[in-house]
Amino acid sequence: MRLSVAFRHVHRSHASIRRARAGVQVLNSENRLITLADKSAVSYPWIREASSTSGTGETVTSLKSHPRKNDGPLYQSAVSDIVQKCRDELKAIRETNPDLKPTLAIIQAGEDDGLLEVNKKMAGQIGLNVMQICLPRQCTEDEVIDEILRLNEDSRVHGIFLHLPQSFLSRSVRNAIKPQKDVDGVSDLNVGRVVLGDQRDGFASPVAGAVLEMLARHDSPLIGKMAVLVGVEGPLKATIQCLLQNNGMMVQTCQWSSKHLQKQIMDSDVVILLEPDHKSFPPTWIRPGVAVINLSSALMEEHPDSWEHRAEVESGAGVGPLSAALRMQHVVRSSRRWIQEQQYQPWRLRPLKLQPLSPVPSDIEISRAQTPKPISQLAQEIGLLPEELEAYGNTKAKVHLSLLNRLQHQPNGKYVLVAGITPTPLGEGKSTVTTGLVQALSAHLKLNSFACLRQPSQGPTFGVKGGAAGGGYAQVIPMEEFNLHLTGDIHAITAANNLVAAAIDARILHESTQSDKALYRRLVPSVNGVRCFSPIQMARLQRLGINKSDPSDLTPEEVRAFVRLDLDPEKVTWQRVVDTNDRFLRKITVGQANTEKGHARQTQFDIAVASEIMAILALTDGLADMRARLGRMVVGSNRNGQPITADDLGVTGALAVLMKDAIKPTLMQTLEGTPVFVHAGPFANIAHGNSSVLADKLALKLVGEEGFVVTEAGFGADIGMEKFFNIKCRTSGLKPDVVVLVATVRALKMHGGGPNVTAGVPLPKEYINENLQLVADGCSNLKKQIQIAHLFGVPVVVALNVFKTDTQAEIELVCRIAEASGASAAVQCHHWSRGGRGSVELAQAVKKVASQKNNFQFLYNLQDSIVEKIRTIAQKVYGADDIELSPEAQAKIDYYNQQMSTMPGLPTRPCFYDIDLDPVTEEIKGLF
Amino acid sequence: MRLSVAFRHVHRSHASIRRARAGVQVLNSENRLITLADKSAVSYPWIREASSTSGTGETVTSLKSHPRKNDGPLYQSAVSDIVQKCRDELKAIRETNPDLKPTLAIIQAGEDDGLLEVNKKMAGQIGLNVMQICLPRQCTEDEVIDEILRLNEDSRVHGIFLHLPQSFLSRSVRNAIKPQKDVDGVSDLNVGRVVLGDQRDGFASPVAGAVLEMLARHDSPLIGKMAVLVGVEGPLKATIQCLLQNNGMMVQTCQWSSKHLQKQIMDSDVVILLEPDHKSFPPTWIRPGVAVINLSSALMEEHPDSWEHRAEVESGAGVGPLSAALRMQHVVRSSRRWIQEQQYQPWRLRPLKLQPLSPVPSDIEISRAQTPKPISQLAQEIGLLPEELEAYGNTKAKVHLSLLNRLQHQPNGKYVLVAGITPTPLGEGKSTVTTGLVQALSAHLKLNSFACLRQPSQGPTFGVKGGAAGGGYAQVIPMEEFNLHLTGDIHAITAANNLVAAAIDARILHESTQSDKALYRRLVPSVNGVRCFSPIQMARLQRLGINKSDPSDLTPEEVRAFVRLDLDPEKVTWQRVVDTNDRFLRKITVGQANTEKGHARQTQFDIAVASEIMAILALTDGLADMRARLGRMVVGSNRNGQPITADDLGVTGALAVLMKDAIKPTLMQTLEGTPVFVHAGPFANIAHGNSSVLADKLALKLVGEEGFVVTEAGFGADIGMEKFFNIKCRTSGLKPDVVVLVATVRALKMHGGGPNVTAGVPLPKEYINENLQLVADGCSNLKKQIQIAHLFGVPVVVALNVFKTDTQAEIELVCRIAEASGASAAVQCHHWSRGGRGSVELAQAVKKVASQKNNFQFLYNLQDSIVEKIRTIAQKVYGADDIELSPEAQAKIDYYNQQMSTMPGLPTRPCFYDIDLDPVTEEIKGLF
Repeated sequence: MRLSVAFRHVHRSHASIRRARAGVQVLNSENRLITLADKSAVSYPWIREASSTSGTGETVTSLKSHPRKNDGPLYQSAVSDIVQKCRDELKAIRETNPDLKPTLAIIQAGEDDGLLEVNKKMAGQIGLNVMQICLPRQCTEDEVIDEILRLNEDSRVHGIFLHLPQSFLSRSVRNAIKPQKDVDGVSDLNVGRVVLGDQRDGFASPVAGAVLEMLARHDSPLIGKMAVLVGVEGPLKATIQCLLQNNGMMVQTCQWSSKHLQKQIMDSDVVILLEPDHKSFPPTWIRPGVAVINLSSALMEEHPDSWEHRAEVESGAGVGPLSAALRMQHVVRSSRRWIQEQQYQPWRLRPLKLQPLSPVPSDIEISRAQTPKPISQLAQEIGLLPEELEAYGNTKAKVHLSLLNRLQHQPNGKYVLVAGITPTPLGEGKSTVTTGLVQALSAHLKLNSFACLRQPSQGPTFGVKGGAAGGGYAQVIPMEEFNLHLTGDIHAITAANNLVAAAIDARILHESTQSDKALYRRLVPSVNGVRCFSPIQMARLQRLGINKSDPSDLTPEEVRAFVRLDLDPEKVTWQRVVDTNDRFLRKITVGQANTEKGHARQTQFDIAVASEIMAILALTDGLADMRARLGRMVVGSNRNGQPITADDLGVTGALAVLMKDAIKPTLMQTLEGTPVFVHAGPFANIAHGNSSVLADKLALKLVGEEGFVVTEAGFGADIGMEKFFNIKCRTSGLKPDVVVLVATVRALKMHGGGPNVTAGVPLPKEYINENLQLVADGCSNLKKQIQIAHLFGVPVVVALNVFKTDTQAEIELVCRIAEASGASAAVQCHHWSRGGRGSVELAQAVKKVASQKNNFQFLYNLQDSIVEKIRTIAQKVYGADDIELSPEAQAKIDYYNQQMSTMPGLPTRPCFYDIDLDPVTEEIKGLF
Repeated sequence: MRLSVAFRHVHRSHASIRRARAGVQVLNSENRLITLADKSAVSYPWIREASSTSGTGETVTSLKSHPRKNDGPLYQSAVSDIVQKCRDELKAIRETNPDLKPTLAIIQAGEDDGLLEVNKKMAGQIGLNVMQICLPRQCTEDEVIDEILRLNEDSRVHGIFLHLPQSFLSRSVRNAIKPQKDVDGVSDLNVGRVVLGDQRDGFASPVAGAVLEMLARHDSPLIGKMAVLVGVEGPLKATIQCLLQNNGMMVQTCQWSSKHLQKQIMDSDVVILLEPDHKSFPPTWIRPGVAVINLSSALMEEHPDSWEHRAEVESGAGVGPLSAALRMQHVVRSSRRWIQEQQYQPWRLRPLKLQPLSPVPSDIEISRAQTPKPISQLAQEIGLLPEELEAYGNTKAKVHLSLLNRLQHQPNGKYVLVAGITPTPLGEGKSTVTTGLVQALSAHLKLNSFACLRQPSQGPTFGVKGGAAGGGYAQVIPMEEFNLHLTGDIHAITAANNLVAAAIDARILHESTQSDKALYRRLVPSVNGVRCFSPIQMARLQRLGINKSDPSDLTPEEVRAFVRLDLDPEKVTWQRVVDTNDRFLRKITVGQANTEKGHARQTQFDIAVASEIMAILALTDGLADMRARLGRMVVGSNRNGQPITADDLGVTGALAVLMKDAIKPTLMQTLEGTPVFVHAGPFANIAHGNSSVLADKLALKLVGEEGFVVTEAGFGADIGMEKFFNIKCRTSGLKPDVVVLVATVRALKMHGGGPNVTAGVPLPKEYINENLQLVADGCSNLKKQIQIAHLFGVPVVVALNVFKTDTQAEIELVCRIAEASGASAAVQCHHWSRGGRGSVELAQAVKKVASQKNNFQFLYNLQDSIVEKIRTIAQKVYGADDIELSPEAQAKIDYYNQQMSTMPGLPTRPCFYDIDLDPVTEEIKGLF
């Protein structure tokens, strides 16, 4: 039985209503229109015309007498058009996003009905996924909202369709749906957007759309026609009203109970009945040629009698299929918007305004005077998705590494390294230049740009060094947050580091006081009568060459090999750490309590940022890699000289857990509201001294092809930059575009032979008055650093960080020498006193130089021997003729060479083998 | 010149338009209506009727011929009514909120104009504050949005009015306003709400409201009348259209350019001209009796010629004043909503559903299987304002202490203490009961309730104890977040504690190697030639009796007294801490490096939660109090036996900074989505063993009068509960309502003489099979704990935490003995296996008992001597006949007695003077 509904008209003179083809309206004995959909019909919207005579179905006049454009039912071509459009669009989407599965989620109460089947079939035709949430018929509003909230957060879902009885669609339920997923246009916001005629971000009800489409396809000019909407208020009524009005119709609304009902219906050219279905009025009210559209809203009410009507729905009749098609179109549109949102776009960054004062106030005063943007706002401005952000208060947030996956097809931005001349007590201001440069790039040149900074140790903050958030009007804010706990990464490193230390001493004690059997029983305990090895123990067995998995199978020798790390207390290289400048912990004796049974040994605390775990954090590219690197850390040797690792101690998992949040870079902002990543802070003198690879990688994706990431190398360029290139870039695979080399007139004067300076004593006059000779002499340092950068094939822009005592002649001299020494540009900058505006010239120079091709290369090959690598660096970077190795150094090289095959861990380690650090003074020992 | 606009009509037959009384419309030479408001008039909305004859102003017919209700201009009484209503409402608001100043913020471009003056005057009449943001006329969209975003976050502002040229009111600008502050109803969401007829949360445009009010006051039934709105689309047009339709009018909209303009105007009873003003149409289009309302939207365009019209505005003519009055009404309504939002309301908590499995999975499996609510959602459900929350990721957030001030007038909820019988290795499950009880109260009895738990030390988490987040189906989730770094409080304590330790040793070293003069120069350095004491140094001078403020005034003796703390290395009582179970740090020697010049000394590390700073965190009531308490901490004695404090070391400020975030309690949730505070975790064996006073106070306000706060005392009731009453309640001033005493059959059996248990070895059969004798004997412990609670006058509910091996007879026996011993109720509970549902009976018992009055009292007076206090506790709590003090104990009491006058710090300290803790095994030494 194929039932199609056509658009028919009725002469008022023959106003008797027959059972419509849709099969749901009949005349009762009093000749009144009865709508049966409330109980007996599958509830779906449909459209029909009042027919001219009872029983004949004869068409008389249409609203407009244009001939039909096709012979099939009015809506069919519309549905086909939409379906085809959706398919095409989906195909286009899948070409660039092969993994995307646009999904419509349906929340329903009870079983599927005809309308749902139409929707599911349509989704199938188009190629959309459907996710059905079937709640019990008696579910509560809260249960519906819970499901909605869950779907809101589910990034797989692009549209939510509430297929629920009208009584469920309360204000709270409707507005629980995220507007961007509200493909049925039921939320207040989406209704407001319809009213304002703005559908860029929202959706209008597909049922209302279907009504309009039907009327429009009928080919009648709608303008000036009068329509009446009968039924209770709600988003559907409001949306239809608005769409018709926007198409030039005059629309009246009316309640069923209104005493004006008759007049309004009789005056109308189109009558739209919203609900409820069991309301009725005499057919005589309907003028000839009037279109009657009955939109039953009792969508959830199903009845066994309705099979006939379901068959009709399945045949595709009426507004039901058309609205389903429009709903699917909305899902496709929603998924396209979702993709666009995730794709790179130029930032719509709102810089914070700066009004620099003169004289420049203290750093903390400047920081406090500026109100930072909420970090969630900054995140949105730079294209982060809400689910990629973990706020830590209102000014800091961790960013998820999943971003790397989402933006994997996004080209990287330009990669800028800020390095300095050899540091002096006067400071050259690398962090300040880094911050000032991104302020200039982002807030003034309107180029996407990110600064990547190291997290400072808290120890020096309370000691002598002060903060590391930049200074003056080029700072990261709030500076106290930057300088203190931040998001706890260093605390996590401390906890992880000291867990390893505790495990080492405890293991030595346990092995010395227990038999093999007792150790084995404790290490592989019986749990509910079952003994088995943990995965980490299986790994150790494999390293020992024992290919057994049943604990009872091990021979006594194998048990002994397994349980005894046999760590040599004299050869423990792992130190405890603390993030405090605590000089009394430089050398200590531990284990002096009676409970430690005489196992006292001498050891030391390092500053927390000197932990090898910090170096790992800075170099890792993800959680798995970090876990593997943590496991391979060598903590000492056994009495045979074999290395013992964290894996052998069994703590790897615990370390990874302790570090699971620390691996995510922390987002902050500059004084001008531009983004900054703060992540990892290994010392340059014992590790590679650069912020994390992960922060740089995330930032390079976020700024996009035309953007800039400015990252900073610790210490002088000879150390920090060399390691940035040879170690960090090698590990990350990233290629630097330009080096910004920071210098100050005062520091150059000191390198030129200026007198020493002492804290608390006024500066010698050489640093206050013009002294071109000292400047010229000191430029030899600058020149050498430029040459080093060129060794790696990277162009240099010299940034002269100007102080108020610098004279014009001094400034010009430095710039002249810098350019003569091969710098692509040499620019004075004034961000400290003027913010980003003071470094616009630097930003322009960096932009220009970064756009040139360069020939980046490493200075040594990984295959070179350790000695060869050291020689290369000593000769090429430090200008040595050759190197001489002390016996201790040679012994250590031998030791590392011997371990290299079993320790593919940190490639950085061999480079620093005889370098050491005083944790309090930060003095370096043993560097050649 | 008094100009008032009345509602007049024009006969079509005499259709020539005179210069209206509003003074802005004239006929041009071609007899066309010219609106001058665009350039020459103060731009404000007004209403007028087309008059019947040129120049005469004769009134002909009104829409309805009802007589005027008053003689004044039509709108005047409406304005007066609204102003009076606003005043009354504001008065009522101020009675309960005397400090509230409802404020309208106006963003304007350029100077004040007439409309602004009307608004400001109206605000003044009503008693509202006005905040004007004057942007330059050439400001950018971004600048406007920046100001809006700032006002959105400013809790003083209750309404935002954009008095800007139409061209500024872009979609981005309009929708930047928080809908709850959008008193002009310009945001899409507020328009949507108008369309849906729902103004509970939003606002409709006051100009639209004024139009409707004018038409309604005109006394004509609007229903069935035809109105046409002419002008560009926008929120104002949409809102007017909707309001008129909702009042039964038929509304057409039309563009000035429409070819249907004439027909639509000629068909209408009301013509509303939105803009622009220089558009015109022939007066012949207007039928007699038609009302013309011209709403100039060029609100920002001011002209010197407009003074005349401004005078009119000031006299109160037209829609201008009426819309201003409605705008003020919206501000008053907004501030009332703001107050209501902040006041206590029963929570609309959405519990998370639990579907307990059997057998019960592991704690971590259960925790992972449940998806926590976003913490911001939970915060909203329990009535926290967004600005009171600092999210730390998506499952934890710190809560601002400002909440205490906001809810100061809110009565506290009931205060429930969970304590346990004396602990055994079998565990009694206090945290599990605490969590299960709030799950039952909140999720099942629908009573607001909060659990307050201690933050566990990370050390034992990686050692032997496992987590402390509860267990089974009564847990805090995510349990790994609870058990690890949480929000960094313990890390902050560690950093603060170790800063003090570093300061001590460094000071001893410095004093031993420097002259008085050198020390003085370093402690009071010359900065830019000026020397002065810091506030903390001034305080030290005062303690020394030196009343001088100029550093150069001190005598050499005074300098010596000032610079030399003269700390006795043997009498340093301050220890370093670490949050790791590191047994090798129990006794150590520090300072063995050459740089420390032989100042090695023996000391120890404690576990971090044993720091005195943790005890302070748990007892403090705010930042100032915490800072003062930190300053008074005694770190040791000088060689004269005088106490030396953190203030003397000068670190107090740094400590307060390090602790500034730690002072805010952390919000988490239970498995059923009910709120939990986690804050502070001092050990019961060295401190008072209870979570923080601040968390309890915040929670008691948040749950409100009918709600429950369940907090937990560490260790057994004899220790933890005694200190909860005598110390924590005394400090906080809070009165407990009921004690829940937790027991298990297995633990009671052990107290009754059951065999010892060993980890890894199967439980002895006594604990698995029924053994009523052991249970009965063990109940002596339960009985004693009940008696102790009664000593303090607090009723007891015994919670028997049921295990699957417990038999019915055993359970009944315990309950019988408990009730016979004076417990108000004894209830078995099954939260571990069934979640909150398994503890509903317990929740009901607690609710009932908590509603009874009790006679809470302390066990000793603060004025009692230390010996007397000890004796009281020993006799009353521990059942001792008397106490005997060892010579060491007596010496310490003497020492503390001597210091008491100068050390009003932690009142808790004397109670624990000879108690000590092994940081690794947590074994207690020296407790009587």
